[in-house]
Amino acid sequence: MMNEHIAPVPQEKAYRLLNHGPTVLVSARHDGVDDVMAAAWSCALDFSPPKLTVVLDKATKTRQLVERSGRFVIQVPTAMQLDLTYQVGHCSLYDDPNKLARSGVELFDLAGRDLPFVAGCSAWLACRVIDEPHIQQTYDLFIGEVVDAWADTRVFSNGHWTFETAPPGLRSLHYIAGGRFYAIGDAQDADTGLPK
Amino acid sequence: MMNEHIAPVPQEKAYRLLNHGPTVLVSARHDGVDDVMAAAWSCALDFSPPKLTVVLDKATKTRQLVERSGRFVIQVPTAMQLDLTYQVGHCSLYDDPNKLARSGVELFDLAGRDLPFVAGCSAWLACRVIDEPHIQQTYDLFIGEVVDAWADTRVFSNGHWTFETAPPGLRSLHYIAGGRFYAIGDAQDADTGLPK
Repeated sequence: MMNEHIAPVPQEKAYRLLNHGPTVLVSARHDGVDDVMAAAWSCALDFSPPKLTVVLDKATKTRQLVERSGRFVIQVPTAMQLDLTYQVGHCSLYDDPNKLARSGVELFDLAGRDLPFVAGCSAWLACRVIDEPHIQQTYDLFIGEVVDAWADTRVFSNGHWTFETAPPGLRSLHYIAGGRFYAIGDAQDADTGLPK
Repeated sequence: MMNEHIAPVPQEKAYRLLNHGPTVLVSARHDGVDDVMAAAWSCALDFSPPKLTVVLDKATKTRQLVERSGRFVIQVPTAMQLDLTYQVGHCSLYDDPNKLARSGVELFDLAGRDLPFVAGCSAWLACRVIDEPHIQQTYDLFIGEVVDAWADTRVFSNGHWTFETAPPGLRSLHYIAGGRFYAIGDAQDADTGLPK
């Protein structure tokens, strides 16, 4: 399921994949078990090396896999993955061992990394956990360093999202509550004082 | 500049004001000095009591005011505030004492709190700093507990954003880089298995 549109994103541009605040999918693998969950609470934290935060509730299997393996993937799902994103956010692998198949998740390999990448997303950030036990325990807040990043060139190229020209189905999703998401909308260019 | 559309948001719904990942304005006041900056890196952290994170660079005056006062406001700017949002994010009060006026920022009082609220935004979250010195120093990451929240009822009511029916100028902004923002777009309702 690797597709020909996936290209690496340079480290210094990786923060842009999350800068607009999309709801993401978090995936992890440990000891032959893969899980994927949705997270609205993930955010860029630094430029270089790129870092990010993500809130992982203690009730999730994904968190256990992240803690045990020290690694995870943050990926940006698309509007075409609306129901998949909702499903993996509202069902636990603890309750349903068949969660991924039932949610329509297809995993694929990327660049030989031993991590579960979700097919059909627009961007993927492979992370290692920066261990901060106090905030992990107190706030369920995990810090990751982005080791590698990739994006679908149909919607992110030359370091920029191209939502305004890409197929609408590739837009990012931004969750509110109760099954209601918003897709990202129109480009708005501020007056930077520079020639456009 | 208090306007008749501003209404309190219940504590348990306050996280929804940030759940879709908007770029925010951070404001703070100490010893007679007010500052406002833009932050793309702010994120919900907990439901009840509501908490959030925000990254505040050491080079910003706003950070100093937050550290000294222990309080700040996170507000959600609108598409009508595109240039204001860009300006307060690209100019420091350290360099330009006239920054706020030059950026078009108008401050107002809200419910008697002694904090600088930015007029024209769609939502305001008054926060107290939960002191976590290690992550503040190491990652510039601040945790706030949301003490009070308000929203403009034209675009947030009954605990829900109403971007799909509100004037487009009230949509939230989501920053990428180089003056490029995206406005939030169309509603997308996942199949929750419940009657709609």
